[in-house]
Amino acid sequence: MSRTERGDCPSFPDLIRRKRDGGRLSAADIRAFVQAVKCGSIQDGQIGAMLMAIWHKGMEPDETLALTEEMMRSGDILTWPQEWSGLVVDKHSTGGVGDKVSLPLAPALAACGCKLQQILEDVGCCIVGQTESLVPADRALYAMRDATATVDSMPLITGSILSKKGAEGLSALVLDVKFGRAALYKNIDSARDLAHSLVTVGNSIGMRTGAVLSRMDTPIGCSVGNSLEVCEALECLKGRGPSDLQELVKTLGGYLLWMSGRASSLESGQEKLAEVLQNGAALQKFQAMLQAQGVSMETAQSLCSVQSDYSLHFRQAEHQTELKVQNDGMVLDINGLTLAEVLHSMGAGRTKAGQPINHSVGAEILVRLGQNVQTGDPWLRIHYDSPALNATQCYDLQAALTVGERESYHANPRVAEFILPR
Amino acid sequence: MSRTERGDCPSFPDLIRRKRDGGRLSAADIRAFVQAVKCGSIQDGQIGAMLMAIWHKGMEPDETLALTEEMMRSGDILTWPQEWSGLVVDKHSTGGVGDKVSLPLAPALAACGCKLQQILEDVGCCIVGQTESLVPADRALYAMRDATATVDSMPLITGSILSKKGAEGLSALVLDVKFGRAALYKNIDSARDLAHSLVTVGNSIGMRTGAVLSRMDTPIGCSVGNSLEVCEALECLKGRGPSDLQELVKTLGGYLLWMSGRASSLESGQEKLAEVLQNGAALQKFQAMLQAQGVSMETAQSLCSVQSDYSLHFRQAEHQTELKVQNDGMVLDINGLTLAEVLHSMGAGRTKAGQPINHSVGAEILVRLGQNVQTGDPWLRIHYDSPALNATQCYDLQAALTVGERESYHANPRVAEFILPR
Repeated sequence: MSRTERGDCPSFPDLIRRKRDGGRLSAADIRAFVQAVKCGSIQDGQIGAMLMAIWHKGMEPDETLALTEEMMRSGDILTWPQEWSGLVVDKHSTGGVGDKVSLPLAPALAACGCKLQQILEDVGCCIVGQTESLVPADRALYAMRDATATVDSMPLITGSILSKKGAEGLSALVLDVKFGRAALYKNIDSARDLAHSLVTVGNSIGMRTGAVLSRMDTPIGCSVGNSLEVCEALECLKGRGPSDLQELVKTLGGYLLWMSGRASSLESGQEKLAEVLQNGAALQKFQAMLQAQGVSMETAQSLCSVQSDYSLHFRQAEHQTELKVQNDGMVLDINGLTLAEVLHSMGAGRTKAGQPINHSVGAEILVRLGQNVQTGDPWLRIHYDSPALNATQCYDLQAALTVGERESYHANPRVAEFILPR
Repeated sequence: MSRTERGDCPSFPDLIRRKRDGGRLSAADIRAFVQAVKCGSIQDGQIGAMLMAIWHKGMEPDETLALTEEMMRSGDILTWPQEWSGLVVDKHSTGGVGDKVSLPLAPALAACGCKLQQILEDVGCCIVGQTESLVPADRALYAMRDATATVDSMPLITGSILSKKGAEGLSALVLDVKFGRAALYKNIDSARDLAHSLVTVGNSIGMRTGAVLSRMDTPIGCSVGNSLEVCEALECLKGRGPSDLQELVKTLGGYLLWMSGRASSLESGQEKLAEVLQNGAALQKFQAMLQAQGVSMETAQSLCSVQSDYSLHFRQAEHQTELKVQNDGMVLDINGLTLAEVLHSMGAGRTKAGQPINHSVGAEILVRLGQNVQTGDPWLRIHYDSPALNATQCYDLQAALTVGERESYHANPRVAEFILPR
């Protein structure tokens, strides 16, 4: 640096160089960077280089905290009525195959008296996308991270998730940090690192924040694909459906009730969740949420009736094909990643923002881990529109199922660890 | 990567991710990147992230070669008349304090029959800036490297230097790779790495390329600053001036003559250079070059006369101040970096492109390394315009001189090593 620059504010190349060399950015440095991202006064190339330097060198906890706080303050921060103090809660999942937990969890928590986001006055919960005015710096950074292969950076993930949750003015937050082959983090150690980062920063910015580490090797529940998953979530709200989905909803919800002081223990929180799933209170909140968000009363009632015919409300795919088990034995594995990739190639997901999604495409898993099966048993029902499945897709799907010796089977609980608030 | 993308060209995020993770980019990948930089079809953020990934992970020799070739082909490639085959040569220096070697070297080589760039038909040499049509990809990348703190990356430096030299259609190239406190590379090992990279790639793209590693701790010659350095270069062309400057010109020029087949050995090349510096042939070429580039015959003749009064042609700074030696002993060190930084702060250099430069600001070093001096001897004459030197500048300048015991003195030759063409 030349002498004439001494004492001036650090320039962006200087900040990038410092991070590139593994140095630490001050809170003022990070504020300057986030502000410039927000108002467009930093070159895009400099944002890309800074993100890549952060990807390589990481951030210290105090840098991550400053990043989160500055991002959070880059836009509006929601405030809630005084009487809701301690009631506004949220859940965030790092994403997995078949993860429809939010759909039953939100109304179940509302049925327990918690508040989740807008339309809260009337219903107590809703499911929303990101708005324009909350955390504008995150929208800019996230688009850039996507384009520059810097999504999977712990401080950047922490800043992105928690700046949005912080701006929502939450009292408590539970994080479902997934690990396994169908998750962003393949092993539990890196998932635990992220969870600790999230829990530390979340509590530092004034939200009571806890996390669970959950396995994401096989899909959650039995259904994968948009419409099929909504139906499975409704079944969960009716006190039915796959037990692993029920467990996750109870665990995450119970944890939140305990953190927000509405249950005296995790166990008692889980019992309250089980109760509102069984007694229809959660389902009633879901029906109210649908109506509040514009669904007609007739449709909402039909969807939420105990013996609903979901096919009246969701378009069915043109074709359904069942795959058969190819040898006798015990179901040892169902590869969620393979399943997701094939369904993605059939139109169930997007590669780029704005691409259309075929909500009808999906799969129903007809067997459970640890179940004994015989050659010829159906194990997967694929819902698809033309064209027909090609040979590679069929081969890949068939390879997603592992059937073998009983001795090779190990039952693993989905939730592996709790990371407590501090 | 999703299955739908299989077999497609890799996307830029994929290329960035591969380099980020330490993987290798194919020649086709690098072509796609350079082409996109040239036509603006890649996001600036992606360029910044890729440059930072390359900074962190480096490139294999074949990647650096592909980068250089693609950059070289991004614009025009100069061609020369058949009869000049083997004659078009060039020299590149990584830059140092007081480095005016090009000014006497170019006319001296022309006097030995070599050709250096445009106006070549008439004169045989000239000094030129970068044109619009040569290597447009380098202009885009260089601006971005400057803004993103990724200038000091070996493959990027190699690509930038050699793509331009390759596009000039050179027969031979000598590289002066500097190391020391006033150079980009502080130690000889990293300078040697860069020199090997440059020599390998240069020869691979069809230029006979060699390098010298030269020390850059103390300034070259006795003068630092724009006008003062031009005068010192003229002195060198008149067979006078500092011996270290004469040595560097002879060494680099002799090396080029040998590489381009115009001398049977390095020594014989150096002798030819010494001859044209002493007999006025190089000076005559310089005078012709000045006239060809628009200087009036009268001015050119006056500048190149044996007893020229340079003050007729260069504006003198308002003030000259001599600094005095503060203790008796031997001159052990003159810190070129400190000198350069203080002169820079006085207006002799730019911090940003487009800033004005004060050509009159500079310094004459009145003592040489190894010389015995006494308290009160003048050792530095500073040329400056108002305002007066401040206390910090005076203190820093005075600290640039080390006088001490004879036993502590070690004379180091400026040229430390030759890296031969392969």
